[in-house]
Amino acid sequence: MPNYMNEKKLISISKLLCYYILVSTTAAGSGHPTSSLSAVELMATLFFNFYRYDLQDKKNVANDRIIFSKGHASPLLYALFAVIGELSEADLLKLRTFDSPLEGHPSMRFAYTEVATGSLGQGLSIALGMALANRLRGVSHEPYIYVLLGDSEMAEGQIWEALQLASYYKLSHIVGIVDVNRLGQRGETMLGWDIQTYAARAEAFGWNAIIVNDGHDSKQIQTAYKKALSQESRPSIIFAKTIKGKGVSLLENKDNWHGKALNVQELRESLKEIGDIDTTVKEHVHLPYTVEIKNMQKPNSEQLFTTYKKGDSISVREAYGYALNSLGRRHADVVALDAEMSNSTFSEEFKRSFPARFFEMFIAEQNMVSTAVGISSSGYKPFVSTFGAFFTRAFDQIRMAQYSNANIKLAGSHVGVSIGVDGPSQMALEDIAMMRSINESVVLYPSDAASTSQLVKVMYKHVGISYLRMTREKTKVLYDNTDTFFIGGSHVFPADGSSDALVVAAGITLHEALYAQERLKNIGVYITVMDCYSIKPLDSTTLRVLVREARCVVTVEDHYIFGGLGEAVQNELVGLPVRVIQLAVRKRPRSGSMDDLLAYEGINADAIVNSVISLTGLHD
Amino acid sequence: MPNYMNEKKLISISKLLCYYILVSTTAAGSGHPTSSLSAVELMATLFFNFYRYDLQDKKNVANDRIIFSKGHASPLLYALFAVIGELSEADLLKLRTFDSPLEGHPSMRFAYTEVATGSLGQGLSIALGMALANRLRGVSHEPYIYVLLGDSEMAEGQIWEALQLASYYKLSHIVGIVDVNRLGQRGETMLGWDIQTYAARAEAFGWNAIIVNDGHDSKQIQTAYKKALSQESRPSIIFAKTIKGKGVSLLENKDNWHGKALNVQELRESLKEIGDIDTTVKEHVHLPYTVEIKNMQKPNSEQLFTTYKKGDSISVREAYGYALNSLGRRHADVVALDAEMSNSTFSEEFKRSFPARFFEMFIAEQNMVSTAVGISSSGYKPFVSTFGAFFTRAFDQIRMAQYSNANIKLAGSHVGVSIGVDGPSQMALEDIAMMRSINESVVLYPSDAASTSQLVKVMYKHVGISYLRMTREKTKVLYDNTDTFFIGGSHVFPADGSSDALVVAAGITLHEALYAQERLKNIGVYITVMDCYSIKPLDSTTLRVLVREARCVVTVEDHYIFGGLGEAVQNELVGLPVRVIQLAVRKRPRSGSMDDLLAYEGINADAIVNSVISLTGLHD
Repeated sequence: MPNYMNEKKLISISKLLCYYILVSTTAAGSGHPTSSLSAVELMATLFFNFYRYDLQDKKNVANDRIIFSKGHASPLLYALFAVIGELSEADLLKLRTFDSPLEGHPSMRFAYTEVATGSLGQGLSIALGMALANRLRGVSHEPYIYVLLGDSEMAEGQIWEALQLASYYKLSHIVGIVDVNRLGQRGETMLGWDIQTYAARAEAFGWNAIIVNDGHDSKQIQTAYKKALSQESRPSIIFAKTIKGKGVSLLENKDNWHGKALNVQELRESLKEIGDIDTTVKEHVHLPYTVEIKNMQKPNSEQLFTTYKKGDSISVREAYGYALNSLGRRHADVVALDAEMSNSTFSEEFKRSFPARFFEMFIAEQNMVSTAVGISSSGYKPFVSTFGAFFTRAFDQIRMAQYSNANIKLAGSHVGVSIGVDGPSQMALEDIAMMRSINESVVLYPSDAASTSQLVKVMYKHVGISYLRMTREKTKVLYDNTDTFFIGGSHVFPADGSSDALVVAAGITLHEALYAQERLKNIGVYITVMDCYSIKPLDSTTLRVLVREARCVVTVEDHYIFGGLGEAVQNELVGLPVRVIQLAVRKRPRSGSMDDLLAYEGINADAIVNSVISLTGLHD
Repeated sequence: MPNYMNEKKLISISKLLCYYILVSTTAAGSGHPTSSLSAVELMATLFFNFYRYDLQDKKNVANDRIIFSKGHASPLLYALFAVIGELSEADLLKLRTFDSPLEGHPSMRFAYTEVATGSLGQGLSIALGMALANRLRGVSHEPYIYVLLGDSEMAEGQIWEALQLASYYKLSHIVGIVDVNRLGQRGETMLGWDIQTYAARAEAFGWNAIIVNDGHDSKQIQTAYKKALSQESRPSIIFAKTIKGKGVSLLENKDNWHGKALNVQELRESLKEIGDIDTTVKEHVHLPYTVEIKNMQKPNSEQLFTTYKKGDSISVREAYGYALNSLGRRHADVVALDAEMSNSTFSEEFKRSFPARFFEMFIAEQNMVSTAVGISSSGYKPFVSTFGAFFTRAFDQIRMAQYSNANIKLAGSHVGVSIGVDGPSQMALEDIAMMRSINESVVLYPSDAASTSQLVKVMYKHVGISYLRMTREKTKVLYDNTDTFFIGGSHVFPADGSSDALVVAAGITLHEALYAQERLKNIGVYITVMDCYSIKPLDSTTLRVLVREARCVVTVEDHYIFGGLGEAVQNELVGLPVRVIQLAVRKRPRSGSMDDLLAYEGINADAIVNSVISLTGLHD
């Protein structure tokens, strides 16, 4: 065990942290001093006594991690790194300014931020992912993942999703520290200072709950950490009663001071109250243990992927399962997560081959996505699957993932009205819009098994957030196994003559478009069909070339009209002399057969034929 | 208390329910017979003994409500209504067909569906809303809200959000019934049959947890309901150990039978096993009590709204608070919910005037939105506010709300990079895309206090889902208090001469566009500025008229480029001879001043001026 810092030094450091918090936020004119002050002793005790981290080697798998789930306490985070000399006071005084990496909430622009936080309730789930990664890697002297939580964020359901899963997986090396300062943004929290009730809830969820009655007493805090670190089968969570704004009587336990900085006069008086501050105090953090990696997995780069025969019927989701399985054989860093749907998303194919690299996340999508962020931040490449509709549950987590530079691959099945009988609650009809709106995302939508296989490989290689939209129903194999698919690509089925119109489709509607192509040919109308399998980025070059030939365009998609394929395509066509009909889901769907529903929404071959005829004026 | 049905009759009815479930799903060729069978006795005991409902008066406020949170057990729901004669066997045999109202998951097309379900984990939150509405209304003999839950969905964090809030608000007239059949879709649930652990968790969350060791024994079940109905301060939840597929040995407690129907041969054998079925059994449900409404609130239709002076500086969110408050005085059915942000969204203005009609939902956005659905289904008009960024947390709940015909008004503040220093985690930059993608939605985005005031009134009148996008910063009042604003409208600031270009903006960027208009005028360039405050539906008529004049268009928005204002506008321009520049947020934002960020993202007056000059070729 490390040497514990003596009480006197800890008090001196705590004062310095307090000073840094106050001066940096006053300089910024905003920020959360009170929420930072309440956790000073909790974090100082951790940082200088228990935390093990190699500042020279941030990627060291033996490093402990600290996540500020209450991201608004960032002034405290930066203050800690100032005490160890990684930031100067001058750096702190640039808090929240445009050129400073010290943002209002921790972002990846600050070198020691583990993951971006600021949307509450996500830190524990990310820790879960990091702990699963450590287990998978088989790190001896398993490092700890510490998570600082606010009491307000304990109201987020995602917290309880993470708690239940962490105890289910017996992740004893997660330590939660809840700063129970009683006050939320606009008043008292649901439970106030009732740390007993918090603890009872956490215990019921299978955690080792530890109570600290005075969260500013470093002896009590030290004892709590020791208890946490002695646990062998259960994760631990410390509920510490603290005072918001601790140390400054103007702020202590006062309403209406959330997210507000002191003005210069108030700062001056507060610093007087704190007394002598030794700004020369410097400390270090302990180095991590030297560890062994037990589970070096052997990849097999020769692993072949399933091949398909043109004309065979197989669903995209099934092909996803086979491709994921092959990818797993080829690359040891592939892991998979699923929310109780593995037999529908076919991620069970992967699970069968790699039970240790498959994580059942149960029906808790928010936690699943954030867990994947944690896993990816530990160097693995998580493929995350469930019904496309249910990724809407994790939109905030996906949104935040981009700010953590997460490398996660999402696969959503059962998209569109084509699922038929289960009805609208199960239909992903907003998922393209959602995934496109994420600024740093890629959206792929294969139509058959062969392209799916290729696109899963593409997703593996892509660094960032990618989404695979997967049709439930079986579809015909359209492509050769050697056809190439890439981000920003498309595939063209040329017209059998000079092109009268261009039909842009993807996924299930591509098949409808190809039927329409056949039927129209029989009446002497020739259309080009573009498989826009890369919805974002879109292959605008090919699109523009095709539009130059055929100035009538029909877009057709199994998605609501807003923010989907049709809008993406039309956006590329502005200013060009084209006529466009957008076929998309416009009416509230219902249960029925796929054919009924495609017809009802006007996105089947009939609708395409009619649109082409009406656009081209060929009915005259 | 009602007369309890005798055991023999209950067995006979249970058999009939079992029969209906099996034949309807086999006829459909899909559906969830096993998940329905496990809850037969739980629901039959409730339906015929405790439930009080007036079939002739579905809107009767004295009615109890039953929500199938496990919506996939819909065959059981329909079977219950067949036993009371509201559906025929022939109706049941049309399950899941296109023209039948009996959808795969309960939808509003079936007359007795309270709310659409099918995305798990939302039913309890909706019940919470109904119970709050009953309390608010002051219904004597307070009706009960019964919620049938699956054990798999207990993993959803939203469930725990609802549990904590229901006990916080002491909603003793909610009764949860958890059908613990041990098996999820692809295998055992996290807790299996461990009903003790479920109960311990619920108790820790402040509920009266009741255990039923045999969820097929109607005596045990009856005792459990009696216990639940005798509670006076805590909500109750029954954890009943059941057998999935109960009654059919082929199915009982078997894996791989989730969501699958028996084939005809299997059905024949199963029916043989069940034995004699009396299809002539008919039953009724008890009528509700005659109740008094205690809290008839007196509206004041003369209530005036705050007026503003052109040129004054006031934030949209502040104007929202004042307008909501006035609306509350004018209409007694206005209620407000907020997720711990009422001092930032200014919903605290309403809270101060109407504490009983304001519900603090704490930081649990999923539950908040579903609670609003429940409140709206009880006839109130909920305004739901938080940061726009955090509505992404409730996207699934908003998506499902449209299928419940919910009448909810969402107000998201702190949108865009213009919030500045707090950084990207707090910035709503995907919210327009998200809210547009909801098929049945309205998206409004006021730029000043006067238009906000009008649009809040518009939202009150609109029936459905509407979203108000609110800027954090103070902005100048641009409009007169008498100017009119409506869904599908816009406002035009004409060019001071023949128009060289059209700039389409909304919210904060409207102000930038107006600065640009001034600056360009000084150099002899004249632009028309369109305030596109109704983003969905868009005022395409006006847009097209303006584009006919000025064939250069600049769209400018404080939102990511995908799915926002720019795309919505460009979609209307396809085929027209226009040149368009889309200004939007393209780079990952960071902390900084508003001006820094608007400049960094190229969405300020400078960027507009430069775009106009480059588009119109006026720099030549």
